Amino acid sequence: MKLGAIEAGGTKFITAVGDENGNILERASFPTTTPEGTIANIFKFFDGKDIESLGLGCFGPIDPDIESPTYGFITTTPKPGWANRDIVGTLQKHYPNLPIGFDTDVNGAALGESYFGAAKGLNSVLYLTIGTGVGGGMISEGKLIHGLLHPEMGHILMRVRKDDSYQGNCPYHGTCFEGLAAGPAIEARWGVKGSELPQDHPAWDLEAWYIAQALSVYILTLSPKKIILGGGVMHQKQLFPMIHTYLQETLNGYVQKKEITTDKIKDYIVYPALGDNAGICGALALARNALDI
Amino acid sequence: MKLGAIEAGGTKFITAVGDENGNILERASFPTTTPEGTIANIFKFFDGKDIESLGLGCFGPIDPDIESPTYGFITTTPKPGWANRDIVGTLQKHYPNLPIGFDTDVNGAALGESYFGAAKGLNSVLYLTIGTGVGGGMISEGKLIHGLLHPEMGHILMRVRKDDSYQGNCPYHGTCFEGLAAGPAIEARWGVKGSELPQDHPAWDLEAWYIAQALSVYILTLSPKKIILGGGVMHQKQLFPMIHTYLQETLNGYVQKKEITTDKIKDYIVYPALGDNAGICGALALARNALDI
Ligand SMILES: Nc1ncnc2c1ncn2[C@@H]1O[C@H](COP(=O)(O)OP(=O)(O)O)[C@@H](O)[C@H]1O
Ligand SMILES: Nc1ncnc2c1ncn2[C@@H]1O[C@H](COP(=O)(O)OP(=O)(O)O)[C@@H](O)[C@H]1O
Ligand SMILES: [Zn+2]
Ligand SMILES: [Zn+2]
Repeated sequence: MKLGAIEAGGTKFITAVGDENGNILERASFPTTTPEGTIANIFKFFDGKDIESLGLGCFGPIDPDIESPTYGFITTTPKPGWANRDIVGTLQKHYPNLPIGFDTDVNGAALGESYFGAAKGLNSVLYLTIGTGVGGGMISEGKLIHGLLHPEMGHILMRVRKDDSYQGNCPYHGTCFEGLAAGPAIEARWGVKGSELPQDHPAWDLEAWYIAQALSVYILTLSPKKIILGGGVMHQKQLFPMIHTYLQETLNGYVQKKEITTDKIKDYIVYPALGDNAGICGALALARNALDI
Repeated sequence: MKLGAIEAGGTKFITAVGDENGNILERASFPTTTPEGTIANIFKFFDGKDIESLGLGCFGPIDPDIESPTYGFITTTPKPGWANRDIVGTLQKHYPNLPIGFDTDVNGAALGESYFGAAKGLNSVLYLTIGTGVGGGMISEGKLIHGLLHPEMGHILMRVRKDDSYQGNCPYHGTCFEGLAAGPAIEARWGVKGSELPQDHPAWDLEAWYIAQALSVYILTLSPKKIILGGGVMHQKQLFPMIHTYLQETLNGYVQKKEITTDKIKDYIVYPALGDNAGICGALALARNALDI
């Protein structure tokens, strides 16, 4: 079965044809220019490819609410020309009978990991990306969670650690999770990019402490059966054992589940299995989801 | 259609027969004694009543995970005799062919409000009770959220307000939401029961501030289309407008939805519609849910 996938990013688009098992058969990539130019490239790639559905994992903010009049739109992005664009409508007009799955890039990545990756077979998983920003996608009872909007879990307020004098860089909340712990906050706090800090720099202990605090909140509210941490910052693999320890400290035995209280926690909070393919496999997962198979 | 409902509380049980629209036709109530005595009372009430399904909204902690070997158990309660009790199994043995719906009391209440109450017709709602403890039930994409366990959202860590010197009374986390804002914390902080504090006491401003902070977290992670606030503390109706204002301050325009940014917020965060019937109507909703109608 041939499925189409589009990973729509703010700087580049990736298009691919793959199958329902997450295999990529063919791919192309082009820079994000005007909507017209970018969409022309999409049509050029897929026309005549005979795909059975199309998945689009999209930079945001978007409207993924199927009951909303602006479903399928990119909404308030500052990217010139892209705000209030009916991207799904444009695709659907060109491919009238094609089922189209549409969601945020991070929701796509969550679904991809649940179909093809680290959360295969689980009906409940949280995927978090910690990069330029912090984004989260949650699958619960087998479905991606939406509601009033897609979750914006990177912006929860945090307790600032006593030894941290950084003011946070979120323009809305200062010291929310993203404002304290995304890549740009690390760079602003320490004066160099995270990728240039040595593995044993105190930055990582503090980073793990914030990530663990945020995970404690997500566990208590969303109750995921697994947590997958991706994004540029998580390339620092030494963060994982520190996160595990701080999380156990933060929850302090309240959640009595061996997945959390024992060293099984290393299988509970993990790195993505799809690695660099997370985005495009996520779009493929959205295509599969649109077929409901 | 006749459905059976059991509201299982730590101090009393309520049993009822009702219909799929939330009408209660007959009810009884008895104190929670030993499991044996209590279950005998349940059988006495329902035997011969010809119900088509049974719903049980239960005090906890419980195991609501249908795939778990201890599904249907009350797990670690300190209540003598009740720990590790297979309550659903016991009911099912007595009524072998009866579909049984089982969940926490607060998940039941959430479902009840979504079928019969303030969230009728919505596929996404958060129900929160602020009483002796803080509990939450979330329906997303039309389904009650479970996962590793049921959500325990009362225990999220909080920022303590600068003018509040109270240490919090959660034995696990000190100043989590429950530790700062449930009924017993109000009483410990001010030296009298919340019900005895005047409506214009500064306690309520602080209480609204904490509730708004917690709601900001729930909105960003769970994205509910409506929030219903019940439990003893919420009898203080003057809290609502203060919560609305503080929530708008906390989110600070980040969530661009008119439900939150405008005065429509008074329809977004509301008091339960089912009032004193929340528990038993919740159990009735679990019974209806077990029939999948
Ligand atoms: N190896 C690394 N260690 C720490 N931080 C990194 C590393 N690689 C990238 N980052 C940081 O992650 C952010 C980029 O995140 P990434 O997930 O790659 O992209 P984006 O979030 O923009 O999609 C930048 O702030 C960058 O400094
Ligand atoms: N009118 C009121 N104003 C403020 N607090 C109240 C009021 N009524 C009850 N409470 C508080 O709510 C708590 C009881 O909550 P409730 O929801 O009635 O029961 P429970 O949570 O035990 O099921 C107690 O701590 C009590 O002090
Ligand atoms: Zn923020
Ligand atoms: Zn607590």
